[in-house]
Amino acid sequence: MPKSDTLALYKRFTDRMRALADVKNTMALLQWDQETYMPAGGARFRGQQLATLAEMAHGMETSKALGRLLEKLLDRTDLPERERKNVALTYENYQKASKYPPSLVKALTLAANHCFMAWIQARRENRFAIFAPELEKMIALKKQEAEILGYVAQPYDALLDQHERGLTTETLEQIFPELKKHLTLLLSEIRQKPQPSDAFLHTFADRQQQWDFGIYLLQSIGFDFQKGRQDLSEHPFTTSFSPHDVRVTTRIHETEPATMIWSCIHEGGHALYEQGLPADQYGLPAGQAASLVIHESQSRLWENCIGRGLSFWTYHYPELQKRFPASFQNITLEDFYKAINLVKPSLIRTEADELTYHLHILIRYEIEKKLINENLSVKELPELWNALYAEMLGVNVPDDVHGILQDVHWSHGSLGYFPTYTLGSLLAAQWWQQLLQDIPYLEEALSRGQTAIVLDWLRKNIHSQGSLYTAQELCQQITGKPLHVEAFASYARDKFTRLYA
Amino acid sequence: MPKSDTLALYKRFTDRMRALADVKNTMALLQWDQETYMPAGGARFRGQQLATLAEMAHGMETSKALGRLLEKLLDRTDLPERERKNVALTYENYQKASKYPPSLVKALTLAANHCFMAWIQARRENRFAIFAPELEKMIALKKQEAEILGYVAQPYDALLDQHERGLTTETLEQIFPELKKHLTLLLSEIRQKPQPSDAFLHTFADRQQQWDFGIYLLQSIGFDFQKGRQDLSEHPFTTSFSPHDVRVTTRIHETEPATMIWSCIHEGGHALYEQGLPADQYGLPAGQAASLVIHESQSRLWENCIGRGLSFWTYHYPELQKRFPASFQNITLEDFYKAINLVKPSLIRTEADELTYHLHILIRYEIEKKLINENLSVKELPELWNALYAEMLGVNVPDDVHGILQDVHWSHGSLGYFPTYTLGSLLAAQWWQQLLQDIPYLEEALSRGQTAIVLDWLRKNIHSQGSLYTAQELCQQITGKPLHVEAFASYARDKFTRLYA
Repeated sequence: MPKSDTLALYKRFTDRMRALADVKNTMALLQWDQETYMPAGGARFRGQQLATLAEMAHGMETSKALGRLLEKLLDRTDLPERERKNVALTYENYQKASKYPPSLVKALTLAANHCFMAWIQARRENRFAIFAPELEKMIALKKQEAEILGYVAQPYDALLDQHERGLTTETLEQIFPELKKHLTLLLSEIRQKPQPSDAFLHTFADRQQQWDFGIYLLQSIGFDFQKGRQDLSEHPFTTSFSPHDVRVTTRIHETEPATMIWSCIHEGGHALYEQGLPADQYGLPAGQAASLVIHESQSRLWENCIGRGLSFWTYHYPELQKRFPASFQNITLEDFYKAINLVKPSLIRTEADELTYHLHILIRYEIEKKLINENLSVKELPELWNALYAEMLGVNVPDDVHGILQDVHWSHGSLGYFPTYTLGSLLAAQWWQQLLQDIPYLEEALSRGQTAIVLDWLRKNIHSQGSLYTAQELCQQITGKPLHVEAFASYARDKFTRLYA
Repeated sequence: MPKSDTLALYKRFTDRMRALADVKNTMALLQWDQETYMPAGGARFRGQQLATLAEMAHGMETSKALGRLLEKLLDRTDLPERERKNVALTYENYQKASKYPPSLVKALTLAANHCFMAWIQARRENRFAIFAPELEKMIALKKQEAEILGYVAQPYDALLDQHERGLTTETLEQIFPELKKHLTLLLSEIRQKPQPSDAFLHTFADRQQQWDFGIYLLQSIGFDFQKGRQDLSEHPFTTSFSPHDVRVTTRIHETEPATMIWSCIHEGGHALYEQGLPADQYGLPAGQAASLVIHESQSRLWENCIGRGLSFWTYHYPELQKRFPASFQNITLEDFYKAINLVKPSLIRTEADELTYHLHILIRYEIEKKLINENLSVKELPELWNALYAEMLGVNVPDDVHGILQDVHWSHGSLGYFPTYTLGSLLAAQWWQQLLQDIPYLEEALSRGQTAIVLDWLRKNIHSQGSLYTAQELCQQITGKPLHVEAFASYARDKFTRLYA
């Protein structure tokens, strides 16, 4: 039992952290609104409002008073372990955040706003030139940020570390080539087999019906609509204002119901994680989502291991057929299962199959390294992009909307982010392997719609831990092994060899 | 031309005010979201987030540094007049805001949140008992607030002053009895005439069709959807995050299209005002809406003087008939005009006619005085409410949803607010009188759908002034007379004598 003055100190610390979280979660609402409902004219003042709040949050995060409080608390060995970790991790973040001059924080927020609005317009008009000057400014700021944060080998390492603590190019250079080797082999085998038809996936499906089915899917995987909601946006995303208010978005194309279906399951996976965080630890490391790699391991597990699995659709396919008879009534479950796992190099990352997806990431990774480490000019991006897509995926990029302009991330200043998608997939495969081992009747349960046993497992093993552990630590704790390529490689080989038998 | 160090000082002042406005406008977004899209579970953390931001805003508003800056600027006679007024009015607000201890600011914000959520639930379950304990706490806080702010005669005066600078019970005791006298006489005359039928107003109208017509109306009066949007909420309201992002809400009942129509025009009137404020004065008195009385004079002018006028509907009625043929195809414009101006004492304030409306306000006013000045207990409210409705309006209140629970205001802590609705109506009648005088062809223009000439007049005379003048000052400037009852009395006598001829 901690002493009373330790408790009083700790209370002062949590009060500060709660207020900081209130400001950050309010910023998340400003952003959510910007991407869902805000009228176009609101952009200028919205950008300014976000910048003001970012400055305030930064001030709170780096306040000397917080620093002193943390330094006192670091010595209090009478605190229980979780509380000690809350203090230590916050102190680490305090030191990192203190490196930023307030002017850079403000500049980054403003740039993100301008860059995002330019991206929206550039997509609408299919003109990369609208986006380029804003992106150029953003890259310059990210380079500045990398210098301020510091790095051992290359500036890009500083940006990787922002998204996954301790992640470096060196680590990726061990993982990515091995993954590429496995993928290349598997893809070349698949290419020699007869390809299933997925024509029925590209047929008309009413917008409202699609929306309703998305809600049905979210409900079925356990998304709590008392503590969250879904809306539409240009690019699907998940955000959270507290574990009791988690928002997902999706997009609907009338002839591409698959886009909506797997974006719902994917964002739903992120959202289940956020809804599962301990609410009594709001604002503290123990109440926050861990790294992006862990986050992505949640969405990928639901989207792919479960949501593209035969068991899941054994239960849900009749419902899909009932709701969209024109598209699916004459299609067997087996043909549907083959179609939704069709491996086919394509242009859009978010619509890629489970295997070629990672080639999109490897391309981004190569480009980001060049942008940050090697002074690649933004003007050269479309050309380089198109060349890499031709080389690695064998596809021709017809225009920038289907190429360099497809993703929102850079406009937010998220560089060094894309690699976490692939690491998340690798980790998802490790969770999946462990789940199958821990719950022998898992596939059977999924084929009866009982995803709750997965959610329970995730809640207990992952969600309840907040950000107390890194991806590596959590992986070791839960699976007894480090993060590695093999689980994914064997999952993929297994699944796709059977599919293409 | 002001000296350069004056300009530098003034710039420091405007930077602070802009940041303060950013925080306040962000709070407005938190509230807008709470009343439109927030899932029920989000309430607890949302309340906390609002409280944190309110505390920050209060800290900025009352910061000693701001005070010192303002005191220096008050002496700078080289500032132009508008800038001097910005400084003087901000200093006045600074002194008022500095009276509040931060604990009270936080308590009021938290109480408003709990009270609002209780009100929502109480309405849903038709149980005043759910709302009562939260309202009791709110009233206690408002009394505390009145004592802190100070007053000459009665605590209620302090609350009136919050919504209209300088307004007192004494002033209202001069205006309200005179208004009541005029109304009583006119209503007794009307009661003796044959009453038109308005049955066709209470027929089925498809929700989506209603929504579309609401958007059409907003567009037709000049609401700029590039700088605003409409959504649904329990209780219609207008809010603004900048002059470039103004949000209105409405509600739709399938058999009461009139509810939607006049709520759209009413809120649209508020919104046109917000969209018309000078964007370059964002965060400063010259860029803010003036008092609630002025705000309500805008909404009432559009809702009643224009939106329940024969000229307006001469243009729009064919469109209404086209969209809702089942309800209106066999109804003449004249019968429609009579029906939408039917005078009939009723239960719900927001659906009351132009005349009996003010009796609802007089009742609220009597009750508020008793709550704040005379220790009326919250438990006694339903009984008192129902007795006053029987006495003054001659209607029996069947349940609290149609009685004491009908309005959101008290749940927000808005006491002393209701009287501004009536003062706003009086002022609207004065604007209307002046408009008719300034633009002789006004009715003719309205009957051709040309409301832009009204909007131009309002923009020039009122919107562009921000909050530099009080209602009284603006009224004197524009009409050459003080705020008075006669304009409304003669407008009402004129209109309703003709309607009931």
